[in-house]
Amino acid sequence: PPVAGFGGAAAGDEVRDLTIRGLATYQPYDGILALKMALAGFMRQTMHGSVSFDPSQMVITCGATPAMEILSFCIADPGNAFLVPSPYYPGWDRDIKWRTGVELIPVPCRSTDNFNVSVTALEIAYKQAKKRGIRVRGVLISNPSNPTGGIVPKEILHDLLQFAAEKNIHLISDEIFAGSTYGSDKFVSVADVVDELEDFDKGRVHIIYGLSKDLSLAGFRVGVIYSYNEHIVSAAAKIARFSSVSSPTQRLLVSMLSDQKFISEYIKVNRERLRKMYLLFSDALKQLGIECFKSSGGFYCWADMSRYIRSYSEKGERKLWDRLLEEAKVNVTPGSSCHCIEPGWFRCCFTTLSEEDIPVLVERLRRVTDSFKSKR
Amino acid sequence: PPVAGFGGAAAGDEVRDLTIRGLATYQPYDGILALKMALAGFMRQTMHGSVSFDPSQMVITCGATPAMEILSFCIADPGNAFLVPSPYYPGWDRDIKWRTGVELIPVPCRSTDNFNVSVTALEIAYKQAKKRGIRVRGVLISNPSNPTGGIVPKEILHDLLQFAAEKNIHLISDEIFAGSTYGSDKFVSVADVVDELEDFDKGRVHIIYGLSKDLSLAGFRVGVIYSYNEHIVSAAAKIARFSSVSSPTQRLLVSMLSDQKFISEYIKVNRERLRKMYLLFSDALKQLGIECFKSSGGFYCWADMSRYIRSYSEKGERKLWDRLLEEAKVNVTPGSSCHCIEPGWFRCCFTTLSEEDIPVLVERLRRVTDSFKSKR
Repeated sequence: PPVAGFGGAAAGDEVRDLTIRGLATYQPYDGILALKMALAGFMRQTMHGSVSFDPSQMVITCGATPAMEILSFCIADPGNAFLVPSPYYPGWDRDIKWRTGVELIPVPCRSTDNFNVSVTALEIAYKQAKKRGIRVRGVLISNPSNPTGGIVPKEILHDLLQFAAEKNIHLISDEIFAGSTYGSDKFVSVADVVDELEDFDKGRVHIIYGLSKDLSLAGFRVGVIYSYNEHIVSAAAKIARFSSVSSPTQRLLVSMLSDQKFISEYIKVNRERLRKMYLLFSDALKQLGIECFKSSGGFYCWADMSRYIRSYSEKGERKLWDRLLEEAKVNVTPGSSCHCIEPGWFRCCFTTLSEEDIPVLVERLRRVTDSFKSKR
Repeated sequence: PPVAGFGGAAAGDEVRDLTIRGLATYQPYDGILALKMALAGFMRQTMHGSVSFDPSQMVITCGATPAMEILSFCIADPGNAFLVPSPYYPGWDRDIKWRTGVELIPVPCRSTDNFNVSVTALEIAYKQAKKRGIRVRGVLISNPSNPTGGIVPKEILHDLLQFAAEKNIHLISDEIFAGSTYGSDKFVSVADVVDELEDFDKGRVHIIYGLSKDLSLAGFRVGVIYSYNEHIVSAAAKIARFSSVSSPTQRLLVSMLSDQKFISEYIKVNRERLRKMYLLFSDALKQLGIECFKSSGGFYCWADMSRYIRSYSEKGERKLWDRLLEEAKVNVTPGSSCHCIEPGWFRCCFTTLSEEDIPVLVERLRRVTDSFKSKR
C-alpha cells in the first residue's frame, strides 16, 4: 500500500519497490525498467550526448562477460565463427569460446595502419573460413580498442557496417571503454553511425556495454546488451535468467545514476585522471626508449618493446615477458596473448598505479632494459 | 588504510571491504569467503543442524537456476542425460536443456508409492537410454520434492547413492526448499547420508541450494552449488564468471545472515506460516472433494483433481487446467508439465495467498467443480 504523504501512483510504486517486500520478490530477469532508463541516460552521457539509447532494446546482465556470451549464444551456433580484428582482448577467447562453441578468427592489423582493420584483410579471412567450411556469423570489435587504446575511425565503422551488410552477417561493437576516453581522437559509437545511415538493416548491429570500466564498478557486475534486433533482444532477455543482477544492486544504481551532478563530475574527473596517468606512464616508458601507441581511451598503454626482445618472434616476446615478471616484477600482457602478429608489443595497465609509483616502475624496468644494453 | 579506532587487521580488512573502494573492485567470481561461510551456517541451521557444510566446497551463483545449469555443464556433455524421477520441477526442462544440450529422462513415479522413485524404475530407464545410445551421467532429484512437497525418505537416498555408485554416475539433489518444511516427515539432506557412509566415493554427490525460497529473497538472485568433488568445484568456480552476485548484495547478505536472532526467528515464523497456509489451503480443496498429497515441504499443494477431468488423459487434464484458468481465474500447474504420468494432478502454489483469500479461492473453484457435477 502506498505510504501516506506520497501523492500519486508513481510515488507509491517507487516507495513499495524500495521496501524489503519490493526488493525480495522476483524481478524481470533482464533488468528493471528504471535501471534500463538510467543506463540509457548514462550511456548517452558518456558517449557525449550525440546518440540516444532506447531502454526497450536493452538487456541487463551481471557483467559485460555474460553479456558477450549471451549475445554470442543468440547470434551463432557451435562451430560458427566471428572475425575479430587483432590484437584483441584476450578474455574473449575464454568468454565467448568456452561454452558457446563459437570460434574466433583473428584478422591481423598492423602498426603501420595504426592497428586499424582493412576490408581487404576481412575479405581474406572471410574467404579462408568459407573454404574451411566455417560459417562466419559476424565481426567483433572493441571501440575504444582493448588492447591498443585506439579509437575506431568513423570511416572504418562505415566500412565494417557495409562489410556486414554485404555478407549478411552481424557487427558486434564492445564499447565498454566509451566513457574512459582522454585523447585527441573523438569516440564515435556505432550507434551514432547507424543512426545516420539510410536503408540500412540495423538488426545486424549490437553493442556491448557495462559499468566495470567507465564507472569503475567491476564488483557490481553490471553489463548491457544493446541490440537493434528485436528477436535478439527477446532471446537474450530469456537467457538473462542465468545472469541476472540482484534487485538491491539495481535499485542502488538507479539512485546513483540519477544523481546528475555526481555523474557529470565523476566522468569529468575520471577523464582528467586517466589522461594524467596515461601521459605520466607513457613518458616514463619513453625514458627507457619504449614508445607507446598513441591511445585515446581505455586503461592500457600499448607499448612497443620490440627493441628489447632478442629474437623477433613470439618466443622472444615471451622471454621478455617472463623477465619483466620475474626480474622487474612488472605484470603486463604480451601482445601474442592478444593475437598480435607483430612481436614485442605489450599491454600495460596504468590505472592501478598512482603518481608515486611511476619512479618505482622506471627503476624496475631498468633492471631488464639496462642488462639488455650491456649484454648486446 | 584501516580506520582509527578499529584495532586489529581483521577489523581493518572488514572496514575496507565495506567502503565503496572495497565494493567497487573485482571480487572472486564464485563468491566472497565471508558469504560462503555465512551460507554454510545458514544451510546447517535450515537443515536442523545435523550436518556441516564446508565453504571451500561451495560456489555461489546469481540464483539456483544458473547453479543448476553450471553444474550440468560440468557433469555432462551435450547429448548426455540425467535420469529424473517424475513428476519433477518443470523449470528444469528449460534451465538444464536450453544451453547445455543435456537431456532429461523422466523416471515415472506413482501415487501408490507416494511418488517415491524405485530402483527398478531407474534401472529400466537407464537400460533404455543405453539401448538408444545415450550416456546417462546422473540422477537428479529435488528434496523436498517440487512439485509434490514430499520429503525423500532416507532409505531412498541410500538407494539412489548406491545406484549412482553402481553405475558410476552422479547424484544431484536440489534442496532449495530444505528450510521450508512444515510437515511431520523430517527432512534429511543427502549431505547427512553421505557423511554416514563409509568407503563411499562422495565425489559423485552434489547439492543445489539458494535463498529464493527458504529466505524468500528471489530478487537477490543467490544460488549455491555444493559439491564433494574438488574438480567440479574448481570448474564451476571458473564458469561462475558468467553468473556472479554483485558485491553490495553479497555484503548485505553477510550482515543479514550473521544476525542469528533474526535468522532463527525468521525460520521459525516462516515454518509456522507455511504450515498454517498449507492446512488452510488443503482443507479448502477438501471442501470441494479434492484431496492433496500429504506434503511436508515447499510452497505447493499437489492436488488430485482427477475426479473433475472428463477424459482420464493428458488432454482431459489440459482441458480442466484451461477451465481453471479461464473460468475460475485460478492459475495452477498441470501435472503433465511436470511429466507426471497420472492425469489429473495439479501443483497449486499456496504461499502467495493470505488467509482472507481462501474463501475467494473456494468460491472461484466452485464455478468449475459445480458445473462439472451438474453436467455429469
